[in-house]
Amino acid sequence: MIMIYLDNASTTHPLPEAVSEFNLSLAENGYNMGAKYKGANLLHKKYEMLKSRLKEKLGASNGEIVVGASATLLNNLVISSINPKNKGIVAIFSGEHASVLGPAKKLKDNGADVRFIPLTKSGDFDYNYYEELLKEGVRFVGCMHVSNETGQIFDIKRITKLAKEYNPNCLVFSDGVQALAKTKIDLDDLGVDFYTISAHKIGGIIGASALYVRDLLKLKPFIIGGGQEFDLVSGTENYPAFSAFMVALTLGLTNFDENYAKVSKFKEELISELKAQNIEFRINGTLTSPYILNISFYGVRGEALLYALDERGIMVANGSACSSKKRGNVTLESMGLNKIEVDGAVRFSFSAQYDYDAKAIAKIIKEEIDKIKH
Amino acid sequence: MIMIYLDNASTTHPLPEAVSEFNLSLAENGYNMGAKYKGANLLHKKYEMLKSRLKEKLGASNGEIVVGASATLLNNLVISSINPKNKGIVAIFSGEHASVLGPAKKLKDNGADVRFIPLTKSGDFDYNYYEELLKEGVRFVGCMHVSNETGQIFDIKRITKLAKEYNPNCLVFSDGVQALAKTKIDLDDLGVDFYTISAHKIGGIIGASALYVRDLLKLKPFIIGGGQEFDLVSGTENYPAFSAFMVALTLGLTNFDENYAKVSKFKEELISELKAQNIEFRINGTLTSPYILNISFYGVRGEALLYALDERGIMVANGSACSSKKRGNVTLESMGLNKIEVDGAVRFSFSAQYDYDAKAIAKIIKEEIDKIKH
Repeated sequence: MIMIYLDNASTTHPLPEAVSEFNLSLAENGYNMGAKYKGANLLHKKYEMLKSRLKEKLGASNGEIVVGASATLLNNLVISSINPKNKGIVAIFSGEHASVLGPAKKLKDNGADVRFIPLTKSGDFDYNYYEELLKEGVRFVGCMHVSNETGQIFDIKRITKLAKEYNPNCLVFSDGVQALAKTKIDLDDLGVDFYTISAHKIGGIIGASALYVRDLLKLKPFIIGGGQEFDLVSGTENYPAFSAFMVALTLGLTNFDENYAKVSKFKEELISELKAQNIEFRINGTLTSPYILNISFYGVRGEALLYALDERGIMVANGSACSSKKRGNVTLESMGLNKIEVDGAVRFSFSAQYDYDAKAIAKIIKEEIDKIKH
Repeated sequence: MIMIYLDNASTTHPLPEAVSEFNLSLAENGYNMGAKYKGANLLHKKYEMLKSRLKEKLGASNGEIVVGASATLLNNLVISSINPKNKGIVAIFSGEHASVLGPAKKLKDNGADVRFIPLTKSGDFDYNYYEELLKEGVRFVGCMHVSNETGQIFDIKRITKLAKEYNPNCLVFSDGVQALAKTKIDLDDLGVDFYTISAHKIGGIIGASALYVRDLLKLKPFIIGGGQEFDLVSGTENYPAFSAFMVALTLGLTNFDENYAKVSKFKEELISELKAQNIEFRINGTLTSPYILNISFYGVRGEALLYALDERGIMVANGSACSSKKRGNVTLESMGLNKIEVDGAVRFSFSAQYDYDAKAIAKIIKEEIDKIKH
């Protein structure tokens, strides 16, 4: 059986070049860069240089890079740095990943005035609701760049501009995990104060993520110890994983247009082929990334379809891996989908690493839906 | 120039077998184990099985394993789970790593009755001081198993036994990072409630550490998100790093006696050869691990010697990598060493991966000390 991996928003298969870089780093850089001898110092310099290059790649002319083991950790760092006792609204988008929503709920429990901005029916950020909050006084806004559920692309530049118009001191945070190497990112242009990215979503090796931060003073130590990462995330640095991440990112940006075109074409073909099979479905989200396709099938539960497709070698999700364990689908529910549509949802997420056959996939989906229905 | 790496307590060079396992895992297990399809489920089962085997290797007949990116993170998890508002003393050993001392100081700032147990002049845990605290009422004790500075081995079984005699509900935590595969560990026998270990100190791949916990209910979520690791440490699991860790540990335990004998022999030889060179020094610590040798040289600053040895290809430390940036040497100061002895300290830490030539190393040390002195 041929395996068809359509869950790349969950994790990606590492690129061979990233694997090579990881192994090379393991072999050449077997030092703790906190040590004082030359080998360790050199490694530290290389690490700092990689961080500078990352800033350039992200279009950030100032600020710093904080490396951590996961985007979840770095999202926690950002949200846990908000003082619950200060005045002003903390506005968090309802469609955020659990690693933002969870800490935001804790912040609210600790007394902060946290408000959750709903999604519109089209899957977008609710600007009307947002502007009402801004009038009341917002000190922090969090909105992801690209939804991990629907692939919806949010207008972070607009969100930041509005925030700073109402309150020049308002901090803006965006989780860019699903945007990296899949949407053009220019942090100077977006104007955000915090931005998180992760290696294993773009063909890097799991174990390295990064946070862009405009002003380090806005963050508080999250993991305390040896003082690594500006005293914010202590623990011995994972040079091999960060270095491999930078190789994967360089490849992703170099091949950006080619990958984008390839994946876009496949996504369009898949939609066409599903229609050609007379399958009843709706696409969730409007202005979406070509890397994610979220579909509600009518008359079939997404979970049942997921298991049926798995038997045919096709791997999909019916919600992000991180949300599947304990909650319903917050994003789709917040968009006002009815229960049938939420239950019928399947997320397909693509990678330019593979050559997918849209017609064959749509045919299998049709067969499995028919089997489930009868 | 031949490079002689004598800083293995800081980090180790990965074992080839661990590197192979890491690469194999990357190639075969490219799934997010939180996903619902079979490949992901299988990976999750393998992960759980590795955790069970780890418990066996550590001699724990009950309890759970929590995996995290670093021991620093997991030490933070343990200490941050202590409620600062509860009554009773939190007794923390003064010789702890910064990832325990730092969170303990924060806990004290938050109102907990944290007391720091001093070291004796011989480098041991001060049992007299400890018993006085126990009489007052201790609810939590933290003492590392092996000192990262001097290699001193602490009698965790005795510490636990005393703690539970005075208060059966007292929780005992030991940081076992420098003990793993270098000292016999039997968690049932030690009786501890928490125990942390790390891959990159025993020839694993950086990015995986583990916490043994007897009762999960004693811990509070530290990184919030997708609910991984019993909701304590969210973020996509790093299967390859954990799997490579288990390979390195299996090797370390299989070759335990052979490695121990080899390293012990070298440590004794190095001490003899240093004496034969008529170098004036004192050994810090008394009952120490063969893997660490902490020496105060008289008439020369440890840092100056470190840089001089580096020019000759010998890499040593004058304090752990994690403590070197911002503090003096807390352990040696707490042992009552005078300033000359603290400043003259050098830490040599060994690995059975290498064949060291004690005579040649002692000769170079002698030459460099003479150069610095003249």
